[in-house]
Amino acid sequence: MSDYKTFEVEQIGKVAHVRLNRPDKANAMSEDVWREIHAIFDWADTDPSVRAVVFSANGKHFSSGIDLAMMAGLGASLSKEVGRNARLLRRKIIELQGALNAIEHCSKPVLAAIQGCCYGGGIDLVAACDIRYCTEDARFCIKEVDIGMAADVGTLQRLPYIISDGLMRELAYTGRVMDSDEADRAGLVNAVYPDHGSLVDAVLEKAQLIAAKSPIAVQGTKEMLIYARDHSVEEGLNYVASWNAAMLQSDDLKRAIMAQMSKQTPVFDD
Amino acid sequence: MSDYKTFEVEQIGKVAHVRLNRPDKANAMSEDVWREIHAIFDWADTDPSVRAVVFSANGKHFSSGIDLAMMAGLGASLSKEVGRNARLLRRKIIELQGALNAIEHCSKPVLAAIQGCCYGGGIDLVAACDIRYCTEDARFCIKEVDIGMAADVGTLQRLPYIISDGLMRELAYTGRVMDSDEADRAGLVNAVYPDHGSLVDAVLEKAQLIAAKSPIAVQGTKEMLIYARDHSVEEGLNYVASWNAAMLQSDDLKRAIMAQMSKQTPVFDD
Amino acid sequence: MSDYKTFEVEQIGKVAHVRLNRPDKANAMSEDVWREIHAIFDWADTDPSVRAVVFSANGKHFSSGIDLAMMAGLGASLSKEVGRNARLLRRKIIELQGALNAIEHCSKPVLAAIQGCCYGGGIDLVAACDIRYCTEDARFCIKEVDIGMAADVGTLQRLPYIISDGLMRELAYTGRVMDSDEADRAGLVNAVYPDHGSLVDAVLEKAQLIAAKSPIAVQGTKEMLIYARDHSVEEGLNYVASWNAAMLQSDDLKRAIMAQMSKQTPVFDD
Amino acid sequence: MSDYKTFEVEQIGKVAHVRLNRPDKANAMSEDVWREIHAIFDWADTDPSVRAVVFSANGKHFSSGIDLAMMAGLGASLSKEVGRNARLLRRKIIELQGALNAIEHCSKPVLAAIQGCCYGGGIDLVAACDIRYCTEDARFCIKEVDIGMAADVGTLQRLPYIISDGLMRELAYTGRVMDSDEADRAGLVNAVYPDHGSLVDAVLEKAQLIAAKSPIAVQGTKEMLIYARDHSVEEGLNYVASWNAAMLQSDDLKRAIMAQMSKQTPVFDD
Amino acid sequence: MSDYKTFEVEQIGKVAHVRLNRPDKANAMSEDVWREIHAIFDWADTDPSVRAVVFSANGKHFSSGIDLAMMAGLGASLSKEVGRNARLLRRKIIELQGALNAIEHCSKPVLAAIQGCCYGGGIDLVAACDIRYCTEDARFCIKEVDIGMAADVGTLQRLPYIISDGLMRELAYTGRVMDSDEADRAGLVNAVYPDHGSLVDAVLEKAQLIAAKSPIAVQGTKEMLIYARDHSVEEGLNYVASWNAAMLQSDDLKRAIMAQMSKQTPVFDD
Amino acid sequence: MSDYKTFEVEQIGKVAHVRLNRPDKANAMSEDVWREIHAIFDWADTDPSVRAVVFSANGKHFSSGIDLAMMAGLGASLSKEVGRNARLLRRKIIELQGALNAIEHCSKPVLAAIQGCCYGGGIDLVAACDIRYCTEDARFCIKEVDIGMAADVGTLQRLPYIISDGLMRELAYTGRVMDSDEADRAGLVNAVYPDHGSLVDAVLEKAQLIAAKSPIAVQGTKEMLIYARDHSVEEGLNYVASWNAAMLQSDDLKRAIMAQMSKQTPVFDD
Repeated sequence: MSDYKTFEVEQIGKVAHVRLNRPDKANAMSEDVWREIHAIFDWADTDPSVRAVVFSANGKHFSSGIDLAMMAGLGASLSKEVGRNARLLRRKIIELQGALNAIEHCSKPVLAAIQGCCYGGGIDLVAACDIRYCTEDARFCIKEVDIGMAADVGTLQRLPYIISDGLMRELAYTGRVMDSDEADRAGLVNAVYPDHGSLVDAVLEKAQLIAAKSPIAVQGTKEMLIYARDHSVEEGLNYVASWNAAMLQSDDLKRAIMAQMSKQTPVFDD
Repeated sequence: MSDYKTFEVEQIGKVAHVRLNRPDKANAMSEDVWREIHAIFDWADTDPSVRAVVFSANGKHFSSGIDLAMMAGLGASLSKEVGRNARLLRRKIIELQGALNAIEHCSKPVLAAIQGCCYGGGIDLVAACDIRYCTEDARFCIKEVDIGMAADVGTLQRLPYIISDGLMRELAYTGRVMDSDEADRAGLVNAVYPDHGSLVDAVLEKAQLIAAKSPIAVQGTKEMLIYARDHSVEEGLNYVASWNAAMLQSDDLKRAIMAQMSKQTPVFDD
Repeated sequence: MSDYKTFEVEQIGKVAHVRLNRPDKANAMSEDVWREIHAIFDWADTDPSVRAVVFSANGKHFSSGIDLAMMAGLGASLSKEVGRNARLLRRKIIELQGALNAIEHCSKPVLAAIQGCCYGGGIDLVAACDIRYCTEDARFCIKEVDIGMAADVGTLQRLPYIISDGLMRELAYTGRVMDSDEADRAGLVNAVYPDHGSLVDAVLEKAQLIAAKSPIAVQGTKEMLIYARDHSVEEGLNYVASWNAAMLQSDDLKRAIMAQMSKQTPVFDD
Repeated sequence: MSDYKTFEVEQIGKVAHVRLNRPDKANAMSEDVWREIHAIFDWADTDPSVRAVVFSANGKHFSSGIDLAMMAGLGASLSKEVGRNARLLRRKIIELQGALNAIEHCSKPVLAAIQGCCYGGGIDLVAACDIRYCTEDARFCIKEVDIGMAADVGTLQRLPYIISDGLMRELAYTGRVMDSDEADRAGLVNAVYPDHGSLVDAVLEKAQLIAAKSPIAVQGTKEMLIYARDHSVEEGLNYVASWNAAMLQSDDLKRAIMAQMSKQTPVFDD
Repeated sequence: MSDYKTFEVEQIGKVAHVRLNRPDKANAMSEDVWREIHAIFDWADTDPSVRAVVFSANGKHFSSGIDLAMMAGLGASLSKEVGRNARLLRRKIIELQGALNAIEHCSKPVLAAIQGCCYGGGIDLVAACDIRYCTEDARFCIKEVDIGMAADVGTLQRLPYIISDGLMRELAYTGRVMDSDEADRAGLVNAVYPDHGSLVDAVLEKAQLIAAKSPIAVQGTKEMLIYARDHSVEEGLNYVASWNAAMLQSDDLKRAIMAQMSKQTPVFDD
Repeated sequence: MSDYKTFEVEQIGKVAHVRLNRPDKANAMSEDVWREIHAIFDWADTDPSVRAVVFSANGKHFSSGIDLAMMAGLGASLSKEVGRNARLLRRKIIELQGALNAIEHCSKPVLAAIQGCCYGGGIDLVAACDIRYCTEDARFCIKEVDIGMAADVGTLQRLPYIISDGLMRELAYTGRVMDSDEADRAGLVNAVYPDHGSLVDAVLEKAQLIAAKSPIAVQGTKEMLIYARDHSVEEGLNYVASWNAAMLQSDDLKRAIMAQMSKQTPVFDD
């Protein structure tokens, strides 16, 4: 496993455990963080021995969001020419979006384990994960409005599929904090755990469960869910028909059916 | 009414009651079941005397999903030529999708009454219905991942519009069972009833209520809701404007308004 | 402020308070109401001193929906020529849709405060607002099916993004009444208040909170949320990158960051 | 081969030659014609021994368009109830569209050979074919405007992909006749032949050429071209990547490459 | 007819002749021109006695494009605040687009008659018309690149549907001038006439021909062609089926068919 | 400039001249070629001193298409497991598509200069360029059907926007060769030159012309044209309004207008 400046990455069986590791900075997302997210999820996407990913964070808070020092540096790099600044800023935003897209494009499910503050860029990040779980002390805030900007790396695009429209708008316009209980009822997280230890254990266990399934089935399911979100039902149906034209010829299907008939647990190749 | 091998179909007033009838096989969905669903809903769609449909199932379980014997037969029909197998499998999937699409394309609302297991193909089926109700003992499972495949007849396309994204993914990746209480909170079902008898009675009553409304209004509403799901708001608005250009000239509108003014119950033609 | 026949409009600081004022007619939506909604929200959209809008209604009920006298007048204007009637009706529907679209297209957030009945056209109206709050005695009804027509000014297009699919269909097919408690659980409203006074106070307070934020941030956020709803995630990401290419060069961003660092409250120009 | 009332269908090697056979009625499209087109192309789609189709017409004219007797019959079936008439007409239009869609959905290329008049419904028909060829005496007319209606079975949807926008609109608004020379320059036909005999011979020869290619390659190409027409470039690229994931494992690819290396003509299974 | 500052508008039978009238300024498009285009085409859209429109220009040149004085004025209105400038510019562009959209949204066909220079904004304008005709001395130029900007009122969006992609890009990147002969071959214009007099006569004659057809048929055709351009074939087919559900009940259809059978010329109401 | 194995890259003023350099292999596209295309166009995209690109090829032929040795190697890497082969092939296709997408995503116009054979993958390549020019001896062939597959790296997605639908299908189904004259009439190339020398000179000159324009204007134009191709006209208009909100604040606009008024040639920064 590569060495990262801002992450600890560990592979436990078929599960990659990715831990954001800037606890003294409240896991603020610096240039290094964005770049390493991109690299780590490209690796997780292509290494067949990884079948599920857990994204957690060391320290008291999941993440306070984008590093303000990085924002300041970006501001300092601007010139007086509005057109060329616009070109530069657009490229930069697309680059940051690319880091979080790498989580979504990672063909393996990504489970987020969230404690303490999950603010601003932290919400953009977990919205790109497949499923979210949190501790009782977790709290969430779409903070961009408070730094004078519309969120631009995924929250406003992905969160409306996760929580209801009215709540989404209230959070986005007011920047108010949402606690773990409301997050649970709103569907932002699937379950709440008493503390960080029990949270991470539970999420790793769920990831192991997923990693034991057929990777052809799980990865096809993720592809189909993301495709369905962005297309009409009819297009989604046509796409899965063309996709499964190949995938139903996989050995995994036979192996799974045989196992089920003989009441055994099937084992699948990567 | 035609004779069906795997269904009992009865018309009660303006409501068609469609009962899946393979209770000894846990209502597993065989070739016959798929073909007859297609035929029954084509009939319900075009017979104007049917104005609402209830889909229920005889026996202890709503459905255990696709019949494994049918899967095995399909597997046996494959050759060594991957390309031609792909062509054949794609056609087969589209044919099965077509059966469930017939439920969605049926211009009359379809209400599902669910008891016991509703697994795999059973979920695909009820996701294509308009509304779902269940008994306390009902339980749901997106089982495809456990037979080594991505679901391909509608669950991954339609369910994300019904339940929240995070829960959807957990169910699809893990294949875990969801009980009636969670299904109710998740919005998968609209109400839970103590047992099969009270469930079917209540759902039939709701269907009768719908069947007494103007069929022009109800069927236009279903068309608009499905259109809206698959298009932008602006396109949906334009479509309903073109649609109602004809439909607001219907007698039903006058009859309904007159009835409302005179505090009487309007009666509508089929 | 202009004089309106059916509305009272007041500007409180940066918040426009728009009150529907036909209490003796249960705030039924007459020709005047539709026309004035269009005018008021065009004004609120373009006047930079307005940064948030509260939409409330005088009297016991928010609105009983479209004025039946207006419907009757429209019916009386039809000839025997179906084709030309269709052309006329289509234009009329598009004109009415335009009034409610003006709420959605208003670049400032619109918060609805709802008491008593909110029926038919009233639902179309509040579905076009950003966020909804109500009193305990509020009740909601998609009433169009009971006057023999499919709703055609927004309910069937916008409400499915706000409440779950199964509930949406039940309400639309049956025309049953939903109380404030169910509306709260369904996500139709964000909060419920004991009475009209406390409701309006609370909503005005939320609006003031929003109006104090950077208008560049808030209005960009509304634009992005509506764009995201109608496009794929990928398209939404590209759009916000192009949008923020300009907007991140705004002074508001610098002002907000500086305020945050110095723990002060930033003040933003209109 | 089945017996048809209004068609002669012959299979020559791997090519189906479908001849419209109502020469005494200028091949006007009667109820029988529409129904048999649907049946013939469903057959051509699923019979693997058919690899290309030629659509020609007996007599002096390709087709004068929809049979006016059929239009009259449809008119006679209407009642005084506008709403129910609208429902009936919509179903009928969708049924007729379905016949021509069967040509487009037929997985094998369809080549049209056109002589004399190709008017109204005849244009809708050839626009649904893959490629068009004609005789010098051929002439084309979007005639619907002259019977007081907008064309509704495909011309207005498919022809704009074939000829330029400005010409399309002139033809559609004025109903003027276009001769074979203009049709050639406009791209409506790929080539012009002196008479019906040389036309049919040439088109059959082209069809035989196509029928000798790998059916996996040809049918995949048709699927991709139709998909590309209706989607963005990016979506088209993603779709072909998923499609070819299966199809590149076909034996045809190996057989074709080996043949090419050894300078031999490959022979492909159906 | 209203009085316009920069246009002469005359109604000849059922045809509106709209003449741009700033010949001494080479018909440069000033604030007045944009505003009056919007007003004139809103009128032409809703006045049923207008069934076709001819757009021509007085003087030697059709139009030199946007008035540079107007551009300068816009520049002068900008402040130092990039974000608020962006908001203002976006509104202004959308307002100008709205003027040309009024041509496209006008339900009656619009025929452009072009002489001399048709540059910059002039191309945006004629691209929004249905059909274009020109004199031999006409010449076209996508001039925006030469004033340092990407065209933003329609050329880059509409022209690619009219001329081929490769030519489109060459013209847009280089700003080179295209003469009438190339414009004819490229499909930008449908025909070329020797001089302005013969051009206007011929175009008026074509407009009269269109105006004599059923307005239900012609206007439905325009609606369908624009819808088809912006949607998939399948969506276009569904839309026309819903549209014609009303329109086939129009008297025009019966009148047209009866006239055709009795070899007479039908006359249609507005 | 980096060293490439299969390309010569030279920067002439603001124009990058990219020459494919495997003349002894008829410029067959090997693994190196695909990888280096990706790298070169990523560089051309981000280096602001490059403002236009010419893509030409050394030797007698532009390119014979994909290297069959590479195809063979890919075939050899497949296992017996159809599902995992499908996963691998899909990734590989997406990787190759990514190389040609880099040409399309390069923000600067790319002009292709084509001589001799331009077959198979060569067509995919030039279809991703902005504009194509060729020599008299050039000939084009969509060759994929002859190696038993549907083209999957762009021809079937991009070419239909360049040439007419009927011709597109004939070329794709039959694999017949098209000469330079037909390519010119079909709009595949914008001009034909007598020989390679005059071709390259002319194309470089056109590229220099483009490179002298405002890069803000030219690059915005490319972005808008590609966006327009993949979206409806209305979406394209909205996108350019948001885009130009920033770009019209660029100095280039002022500089260009001032130059035009003073009849001077403006000079623009990169």
